[in-house]
Amino acid sequence: MADKPSVLRETDDEARKLARVLLRSARSAAIAVIVPGSDGFPFVSRVLLGIDTDGTPVILVSALSTHTQALSADIRCSLLTGEIGKGDPLAHARLTVQCEAVKIDRDSATHTRIRERFIRRHPKAQLYVDFPDFAFFRLTPLKASLNGGFGRAYALAGEDLMIRSPAIDDLAAMEASAIEHMNTDHRDAASKYANAYCKAKGSGWRICGLDAGGVDLASGDQLKRLEYENPLQSEGELRVALVKLYR
Amino acid sequence: MADKPSVLRETDDEARKLARVLLRSARSAAIAVIVPGSDGFPFVSRVLLGIDTDGTPVILVSALSTHTQALSADIRCSLLTGEIGKGDPLAHARLTVQCEAVKIDRDSATHTRIRERFIRRHPKAQLYVDFPDFAFFRLTPLKASLNGGFGRAYALAGEDLMIRSPAIDDLAAMEASAIEHMNTDHRDAASKYANAYCKAKGSGWRICGLDAGGVDLASGDQLKRLEYENPLQSEGELRVALVKLYR
Repeated sequence: MADKPSVLRETDDEARKLARVLLRSARSAAIAVIVPGSDGFPFVSRVLLGIDTDGTPVILVSALSTHTQALSADIRCSLLTGEIGKGDPLAHARLTVQCEAVKIDRDSATHTRIRERFIRRHPKAQLYVDFPDFAFFRLTPLKASLNGGFGRAYALAGEDLMIRSPAIDDLAAMEASAIEHMNTDHRDAASKYANAYCKAKGSGWRICGLDAGGVDLASGDQLKRLEYENPLQSEGELRVALVKLYR
Repeated sequence: MADKPSVLRETDDEARKLARVLLRSARSAAIAVIVPGSDGFPFVSRVLLGIDTDGTPVILVSALSTHTQALSADIRCSLLTGEIGKGDPLAHARLTVQCEAVKIDRDSATHTRIRERFIRRHPKAQLYVDFPDFAFFRLTPLKASLNGGFGRAYALAGEDLMIRSPAIDDLAAMEASAIEHMNTDHRDAASKYANAYCKAKGSGWRICGLDAGGVDLASGDQLKRLEYENPLQSEGELRVALVKLYR
């Protein structure tokens, strides 16, 4: 067996961007946790996935589920994202992110922000998001493994999946109104973005997320992520970026 | 938080059948393992999935991958199967199976049987199945959790996912020739089975597996599992069962 490092390619910006898109365009993920009281037995289940304004993955889970009970006992977990397309399932890119879970206090400003953003991404979650047994967890990325298809493996740092910008909070404060403006007054923009930058088809796209790192686009059950080349550094850059993409 | 048992429904034959179909109709699965040398950090990745003639899930994996290195250090793992369809990803049934992995010796009769069956299910795996770093593992089911959609959770025993019959070996010995006969001399049978019993469409179906528990059907990237009501008890029952289904 070869040494493990020898099968890894050098991690470049293209790999980092692919990893971010695989994580941020996923509606759901497989999550691996440790079964509570099992002396370390791994368990995998499916969770709805959102992304916080700093790039941190977010899950909305019921306290009745094994994964939630597991995270309460051991915060270590991993997420698998990346959809299976045509042909061999292993020919399609996927990402494993190793994380530590932090439960979000329901009375916090963080909860308000995450809840709004999550519902824009998953409108049907409105039905159960406020049930007393449901809670959000932020899953802080520690490191990640990108498999871009046979023979294309990369190791990433948690930092590679984060959005770093001084404008994160300012942009979060204006996100809802900016999205409404775009989806109402520039209704064709979302479809134009999806078609031009995300290999998407059709005209039914809407913007469901705007942050310093990029744009989330939704159409029915489809979700796409448009990543800016560099994160926005100020609130004022948002309009410029959206106009430039519209060309 | 409610006691965990109170959210589980009583496991009935319908739930057991759904669980078997979710496992046996999956082309790939998410697999949770423990990262070697990590003091118990869970990891999730994607693997190609097959099923042995006794119902045991089988994976074909490279020694270069994290999951294979993990299983060599700790045989405990879990598989997640069940495809995501339209609407809320969590509205679709999925199955978690907790397993113990056993590596298959390349010179064994078990390897020959599993290899043939796996290639019929995944023809493209022929390209790498014999690479020196690739190996098959049988994943013996210990227990399972079925989630049939919101509020429909069931606990299953590993035994619920096994095929028990005195005819397993006799059927395995004739599997290849029986499949060739069906796909050549009764070319419409597979599509008829898929359409009538597996909610499938189209006429391009072929049989890719025949065992005491049922029939595996493939068309392009689609895979379906037709489960018999009861496992065949002798080799002679195969023809009777296939004729009966053809009505």
